[in-house]
Amino acid sequence: MANSPTGDSVTDRLVRVLETFTPTRTVQTAAEIGRRAGLPSSTAHRVVGDLVAAGLLDRDGDGRVSVGLRLWALATRSSHALRMRQAALPAMERVQARVREHTQLAILEQDEALFLERLSHPEAGANITRIAGRLPLHAASSGLVLLAFADRAVQERVLTRPLRRLTAATPTDPATVRRTLAEVRRLGHVIAPGYVDVVSTGVAVPVRDAAGRATAALSVVLPREAPTALALEELRGAARAVERALGAG
Amino acid sequence: MANSPTGDSVTDRLVRVLETFTPTRTVQTAAEIGRRAGLPSSTAHRVVGDLVAAGLLDRDGDGRVSVGLRLWALATRSSHALRMRQAALPAMERVQARVREHTQLAILEQDEALFLERLSHPEAGANITRIAGRLPLHAASSGLVLLAFADRAVQERVLTRPLRRLTAATPTDPATVRRTLAEVRRLGHVIAPGYVDVVSTGVAVPVRDAAGRATAALSVVLPREAPTALALEELRGAARAVERALGAG
Repeated sequence: MANSPTGDSVTDRLVRVLETFTPTRTVQTAAEIGRRAGLPSSTAHRVVGDLVAAGLLDRDGDGRVSVGLRLWALATRSSHALRMRQAALPAMERVQARVREHTQLAILEQDEALFLERLSHPEAGANITRIAGRLPLHAASSGLVLLAFADRAVQERVLTRPLRRLTAATPTDPATVRRTLAEVRRLGHVIAPGYVDVVSTGVAVPVRDAAGRATAALSVVLPREAPTALALEELRGAARAVERALGAG
Repeated sequence: MANSPTGDSVTDRLVRVLETFTPTRTVQTAAEIGRRAGLPSSTAHRVVGDLVAAGLLDRDGDGRVSVGLRLWALATRSSHALRMRQAALPAMERVQARVREHTQLAILEQDEALFLERLSHPEAGANITRIAGRLPLHAASSGLVLLAFADRAVQERVLTRPLRRLTAATPTDPATVRRTLAEVRRLGHVIAPGYVDVVSTGVAVPVRDAAGRATAALSVVLPREAPTALALEELRGAARAVERALGAG
């Protein structure tokens, strides 16, 4: 594909433009996009214009652009994310109806936990997870079960990098994380009090394939000191249901 | 952006590649993509390679590619589709719990009904709608309420084009559709027996903004001869709840 003078492909520039959009920054001018993507203003205007013409970005009356519905539809309709989410949604709804707290589905993606779905009860507590958002594997309860049942190579890669501290309770010592992962494999679940957010405890279980690897994690976010038994029981049942729905049971 | 000898931009080629993926065709070889996108084989291999390198497509061990999770995440996390869907999901879950049939959320997009969300009850009947799928405005119940409460210019544009017949019951005469739209405006809902699928009846209501335009449609798909009163009552309540959630109530 055509390359710019600096050697990055048009696809790279397109990704850099898309990456400037976040859950809290959904509308931007082309100039803002250029600054945030590190592109010259003229390049940013040209890439944005092209993306608007193709319907991948939408431009409003004030000339500001947002991620277009056409891009969402193209990316969603045939995606693995949608298939996994469709298999998991009925079981997640049952968990949420009984536990009445945030119920989440995550997968391992590029050495992070990527959240595919989140059901939020109106009265549920704080939760910083967002759909299509990411959290570090060593901190999020979902991440810990994904990592515990991942290939050994993934575990080694993650544990030899610096482990970011999100709260005072986040485990950042590789030896501590290794012990936690061993316990997760033994128990089949994890309880992560305050690892991501001081006010919350994450409870997670793996959804496993026939080879025993975690294909996804189901989790509930509870208030920090809440009992975890009900959530754990519901999550275990939900994981078996998702495994059956995926044909791995 | 760089153009090919035939004058289509790299972004256009990228869209043509993505459009070859559908809900029923999620994995393809680069050669298949090239054939379906109408691109020379060498171009298709180059574009696919670039998209794989950028993480927008994933390549499996057999060299076949699928839509990548990174593309899904980029397209989803800041999209209008996600915001609308998050506002609507709690009300949709209540509808589905009570009516126990497919419950759907659609918006008007490029003169079609684009489905943002679908909750399916395991025992619910047939339904050809898919998330991120589209149906014609004059046929789907969601489409009819979106069209009835759309700008007059949209109505005229849609009604002056050929109206596709999906079943023997699909209204394809513009005068008939106009009368239906007038009735939808009067009643605030539509019942569409067999318009999309001979075995189903769609029931839909608009989610309206402060100016009275439909920003979305909520619908339920019932077996063709099922009573519609409960679905209608639940949908009306849900639409008010979504309007409040969107701050338009």
